[in-house]
Amino acid sequence: MSSANPKSPIITLLTDFGTSDYYVGAMKGVIMSRAPGAPIVDISHEIAPQAVLSAAYVLLGAHREFPDGTIHLAVVDPGVGSSRRGIILRVDRYFFVGPDNGLFSLAAPAPVTVYEIQPSAYLAESVSNTFHGRDVFAPVAAALAVGVRPEDLGSAITDPRRLPQITQVSNSEVQSQVMHIDRFGNAVTGIERRHLTSGKLPPSFGLRVGANLIEVQKRFYAEEPLVLRRPFVIWGSLDFLEISIAQGSAADELGLSRGQPVTLKLG
Amino acid sequence: MSSANPKSPIITLLTDFGTSDYYVGAMKGVIMSRAPGAPIVDISHEIAPQAVLSAAYVLLGAHREFPDGTIHLAVVDPGVGSSRRGIILRVDRYFFVGPDNGLFSLAAPAPVTVYEIQPSAYLAESVSNTFHGRDVFAPVAAALAVGVRPEDLGSAITDPRRLPQITQVSNSEVQSQVMHIDRFGNAVTGIERRHLTSGKLPPSFGLRVGANLIEVQKRFYAEEPLVLRRPFVIWGSLDFLEISIAQGSAADELGLSRGQPVTLKLG
Amino acid sequence: MSSANPKSPIITLLTDFGTSDYYVGAMKGVIMSRAPGAPIVDISHEIAPQAVLSAAYVLLGAHREFPDGTIHLAVVDPGVGSSRRGIILRVDRYFFVGPDNGLFSLAAPAPVTVYEIQPSAYLAESVSNTFHGRDVFAPVAAALAVGVRPEDLGSAITDPRRLPQITQVSNSEVQSQVMHIDRFGNAVTGIERRHLTSGKLPPSFGLRVGANLIEVQKRFYAEEPLVLRRPFVIWGSLDFLEISIAQGSAADELGLSRGQPVTLKLG
Repeated sequence: MSSANPKSPIITLLTDFGTSDYYVGAMKGVIMSRAPGAPIVDISHEIAPQAVLSAAYVLLGAHREFPDGTIHLAVVDPGVGSSRRGIILRVDRYFFVGPDNGLFSLAAPAPVTVYEIQPSAYLAESVSNTFHGRDVFAPVAAALAVGVRPEDLGSAITDPRRLPQITQVSNSEVQSQVMHIDRFGNAVTGIERRHLTSGKLPPSFGLRVGANLIEVQKRFYAEEPLVLRRPFVIWGSLDFLEISIAQGSAADELGLSRGQPVTLKLG
Repeated sequence: MSSANPKSPIITLLTDFGTSDYYVGAMKGVIMSRAPGAPIVDISHEIAPQAVLSAAYVLLGAHREFPDGTIHLAVVDPGVGSSRRGIILRVDRYFFVGPDNGLFSLAAPAPVTVYEIQPSAYLAESVSNTFHGRDVFAPVAAALAVGVRPEDLGSAITDPRRLPQITQVSNSEVQSQVMHIDRFGNAVTGIERRHLTSGKLPPSFGLRVGANLIEVQKRFYAEEPLVLRRPFVIWGSLDFLEISIAQGSAADELGLSRGQPVTLKLG
Repeated sequence: MSSANPKSPIITLLTDFGTSDYYVGAMKGVIMSRAPGAPIVDISHEIAPQAVLSAAYVLLGAHREFPDGTIHLAVVDPGVGSSRRGIILRVDRYFFVGPDNGLFSLAAPAPVTVYEIQPSAYLAESVSNTFHGRDVFAPVAAALAVGVRPEDLGSAITDPRRLPQITQVSNSEVQSQVMHIDRFGNAVTGIERRHLTSGKLPPSFGLRVGANLIEVQKRFYAEEPLVLRRPFVIWGSLDFLEISIAQGSAADELGLSRGQPVTLKLG
């Protein structure tokens, strides 16, 4: 029986497991068995396979809307079964649980404390080599939800892995890359509003990506007339610069892909 | 902390946001922060991008199964950031919240009252130009869930936008179009059982779509022998006429797409 | 209004309905209307259309992680509307509800009792020919959740349908087939660890699938160097033998599909 627990923190899930397998269901079953009544919320299970940077960006955008105390469980984990560590990050308002591969470095750039998950009675009785989401990370998130202290789940470390810095700013330009392609085909770059001195693009900017030079900026998607099939840039809702086409897929029409370099000339 | 609220109305979500981005997760976080304990249910996030008619049909089919008091939040919103209004519709049993673009005109053809959402302290502190799902509609749904009156969120209007009528009935035929393609490749037309005087197809009907003339009707999908690769029509579970092929995709095999005209000859 | 029910069993959902239609939303609405407060958990709605064996495998992997009392509702139902029966299976810890087509034969190989669902006041007032998920199975699951006895929903039967046996073991080889392709392109075969006398592969094994002979085994996915684009086998987290390629899709690269024969030579 599930017994609702009105005081339970929320557990969010972010994976690249897709939803056509038993992987996500098994994780939810583990959590519901071990932390009855904990509300479980899917952020996404459709991260491109093994796309750690893309996952870090999605987690950045979603995690901060959740109430204090939320436990963010994320598993994009090409290194499962190898010597890569599993970690718990604690920040002011949240816990993060998952593999130590940089996945949390955008959402939790300055964790208060980091713990390496250690073998304990809180994990699955038998830990597989292929599915730590079920055997390690879901049990750890459930343990945190019922009040187990992170100190009892792991040992403090000071060197969590971080994603490589993808954006370089100089006086005349910003170099970065395509970080994520969204559902509509918008290509989200690593260029943030804070990278620009004034917080905005100069009038004569130019964004170069592949063979394209984009010199048009819009404030909202429908501002661009539909008849024009030209790409434009727009500040997305997290203040990253996106490449878009009105009611079309910029990624498909311009042939953009994750990891592709972009250069913003500042005039 | 999330505190369960046993009296909270349910909030359903319907969008074209997909599930590979942070958009849906952020909306859920906003709701859980502002209406702790409100049950959140996904209807669909896989509406074809900007397909308002398709979304209206899906909302029609799903919304009415929910308990009284449910708040149906739907965001398929090509006009976000433009001057299109945000609205709250009130019908007998439900609230609907979303953009004023016709999205609710099948599920709520005769709303009791309609409100245009106005700026207020209930919205996000800073409303972006690109993501009203997070900044406007989720906050409004959460406010309704905790008992804020729609009068305190907007001002009454009398002219909500409606989708254009896609079905014309005459004595000899019904003209309509493909409204939605479902997961199995069934093409759902705008022809409803109520459009036919007797509530059924005459024995010698013919449905023309593209180069195809379909003259076979089935009562259930498995009634058609698998060896026959011919299309048939069938009344779907909402009493709209669908074009199907046994254990195959009618849309793929006949090359059907949303918006395509269909003509039903009545004999 | 939804009223939370802390004693309610969990209801899990597994279908091939996808998430772009109203089907899943309607089922959830039915359950929430009839069993207020019952926690609903999605296992998957992305089973390949009508792929009963694939669904049976996913249910096997997910169901057993859930707490005692959970009701597993599964609808992959090519025979809807025909004379195929609807059933309730009872095992020690769980109920299963869905069509009688073998869907439960991996997760519940030895049910305590099986009931054929009969018309009753617990079903939808009008049962469609095309959507028993909404009209029969969701109402039955909701009835079980609020304490209706299976005897009041159907009559006991002793001959539920089972999937055909796909794996044959001899001294020198195991013959089976590809049962499921997972999100990462791993091809899961019907060969289980328990089919091998020692519980492991002999040193000189060979797995033949199509034109490929695979003679390499790995313990975890990242054990294989990325530079090698060769396929390997690995015991998956349910102890079925999988065909994989490091950070690639074995199914795409080797052209594997569900139902394809595989032969494991034991040396």
